[in-house]
Amino acid sequence: MGLEDLAREAVEGAVANAKVDLKKIDAVFVASKASGSFNNQRHINALVSSFFSHNPPATRIEGACASGGLALIAAEQSLLSKENQTVLVLGVEKMTDVDGVGATSILSTAASTQLEGGSTFPGLYALLAQAHQLEFKTSREILSAVSVKNHRHALTNPLAQYHKEFTLKQVSNSALVADPLRLLDCSPVSDGASAVILTTKNIKNKAQIIGAGHGQDSLDLAHRKSLTELAATKRAAKKAFASSDLTPNKIEAAEVHDCFTIAEILAIEDLGFFPKGGGGKATLEGKTERRSKLVVNGSGGLKAFGHPVGATGVKQVSYLAEQIEKGECGLALAHNVGGSGATAVVHILSK
Amino acid sequence: MGLEDLAREAVEGAVANAKVDLKKIDAVFVASKASGSFNNQRHINALVSSFFSHNPPATRIEGACASGGLALIAAEQSLLSKENQTVLVLGVEKMTDVDGVGATSILSTAASTQLEGGSTFPGLYALLAQAHQLEFKTSREILSAVSVKNHRHALTNPLAQYHKEFTLKQVSNSALVADPLRLLDCSPVSDGASAVILTTKNIKNKAQIIGAGHGQDSLDLAHRKSLTELAATKRAAKKAFASSDLTPNKIEAAEVHDCFTIAEILAIEDLGFFPKGGGGKATLEGKTERRSKLVVNGSGGLKAFGHPVGATGVKQVSYLAEQIEKGECGLALAHNVGGSGATAVVHILSK
Repeated sequence: MGLEDLAREAVEGAVANAKVDLKKIDAVFVASKASGSFNNQRHINALVSSFFSHNPPATRIEGACASGGLALIAAEQSLLSKENQTVLVLGVEKMTDVDGVGATSILSTAASTQLEGGSTFPGLYALLAQAHQLEFKTSREILSAVSVKNHRHALTNPLAQYHKEFTLKQVSNSALVADPLRLLDCSPVSDGASAVILTTKNIKNKAQIIGAGHGQDSLDLAHRKSLTELAATKRAAKKAFASSDLTPNKIEAAEVHDCFTIAEILAIEDLGFFPKGGGGKATLEGKTERRSKLVVNGSGGLKAFGHPVGATGVKQVSYLAEQIEKGECGLALAHNVGGSGATAVVHILSK
Repeated sequence: MGLEDLAREAVEGAVANAKVDLKKIDAVFVASKASGSFNNQRHINALVSSFFSHNPPATRIEGACASGGLALIAAEQSLLSKENQTVLVLGVEKMTDVDGVGATSILSTAASTQLEGGSTFPGLYALLAQAHQLEFKTSREILSAVSVKNHRHALTNPLAQYHKEFTLKQVSNSALVADPLRLLDCSPVSDGASAVILTTKNIKNKAQIIGAGHGQDSLDLAHRKSLTELAATKRAAKKAFASSDLTPNKIEAAEVHDCFTIAEILAIEDLGFFPKGGGGKATLEGKTERRSKLVVNGSGGLKAFGHPVGATGVKQVSYLAEQIEKGECGLALAHNVGGSGATAVVHILSK
């Protein structure tokens, strides 16, 4: 499937699932990180608008791997502005039109080219992992436990890219990519698309977005105040919790941005689920496993579900909405990060 | 100057001119068509957010050469949503980090790769020019008159890329690029940035945005209903005029998207300034010249002011706001197009 096929399948699925009249889509927001480089196709807002015979206004949003979350924020503001009543948000990325080296190189344009040019994302996250290890004795076993759990979660998700269980030992012994990160610490190159329909109308049995936040930090690591937390996540979470009048202990399911295993540890601490430095222990104790009080990355996460970069933020919300609509949970949180943490978006969903 | 230098100069200029406290910027919207390919730098929302010590939420918007107009629309919706009170919109493109062939190739990713792959924008606009010539006998002299006028207008604009007058003969005899378009029918490759600050507060002696519209059409030419008009422009204009309760004959200054001379003829017809097929005659009669009832592209337009693609839509509004604030005109219109016309944004400004 090509870029357009992926986009079309997601849009058609969302429209069918929401049982919306196509003509009622007032506007479209398209998230993609790098279709210009992966597929030589920019201006995909116009491409997607043409899926609808009435050619609704469409806008493409990019903020690296947080493109999906940012597109949701823009869509929500367009609804709150009363310019629109019903909008579609599509995230899409077709990454395998280039080879692995090409993909790594395209992805690295989300770091600071001036200050971090030549770095790759495994390399930048390895620095965050090393800082966390130094300060909190975060062990090899902790990182592996994240991967093992997320691969186990993906086994029951038919949409996941991988349906394969790994042992702690297999993860710990997988090929070294950027010390301490190994192959099975890294999310894969993925093709995928996800679409959701947001409306200001009250619709029975559909999940609601009850809180949202968007935070930023320095694009490059050198100007961050700390390497053991993502300040952008904390800012986004603070706003999302404040707007929904909730606290982290109420959340039952969270999809967090585990582009690398260390990123999940950072996320569950920065989101306030566990104290700083306590995320690893909680993970080893199974506190983020399915059927615990808080399930983290029940979908399989970026690690095992896959990470079609521009689609991920939309897919997190789409997955959690389905969980809520099936009665699997009541309150859920989606956490989407761009780059090495310069952009973060948090959404809170409820019944 | 590099990408970041250009962006910083525009942001600092806008902040100084608006006399806003930096801390009062609630959010930032960044328009760029292709910084990922021109400068290997995506995720520039985070880069620009870091210009401010409080790291406001920032979003990058892309819709080919209409990126600037779309960023303004998203910023306006964020203000109408009451999420923000004061926002900054920056458009930036640094195109000369690659050579001319590279730039043409990057720009062409805004056309339909699947249906028009291998085409260049001069080639696609040449098809529109041929259709217009066939239907309305649009002469070589008409196209040249657009270029001559816009180059003359640019002479008095210190920010313009070119300060050089051309005769009709010089334009008509310039190198053939894509029949009938010649070198002096084409806007140049440009580096540039432009920033504006939008606020819901009522500020004395500052221009106001009183109408906005955003329209789409098929990404590729093959699926358009007509090749002698841009339906997206007509849709955007209809909405902008309706929202401002104005008619085209009230507009005194218009910045229209003259990426090629034929595009200005299409624009002044599709925007309702002149009847379809009458734009060429009006141009020859000097009806779009400075000091006429309606001045079109007083800045020099994309042709002579320059066309740093992601910045253009912001620059049009910034230029017109300055004209209004100087008392040069009372009502003004900005018209920004993406690709060969699949996306269009129209803004109407007043005192």
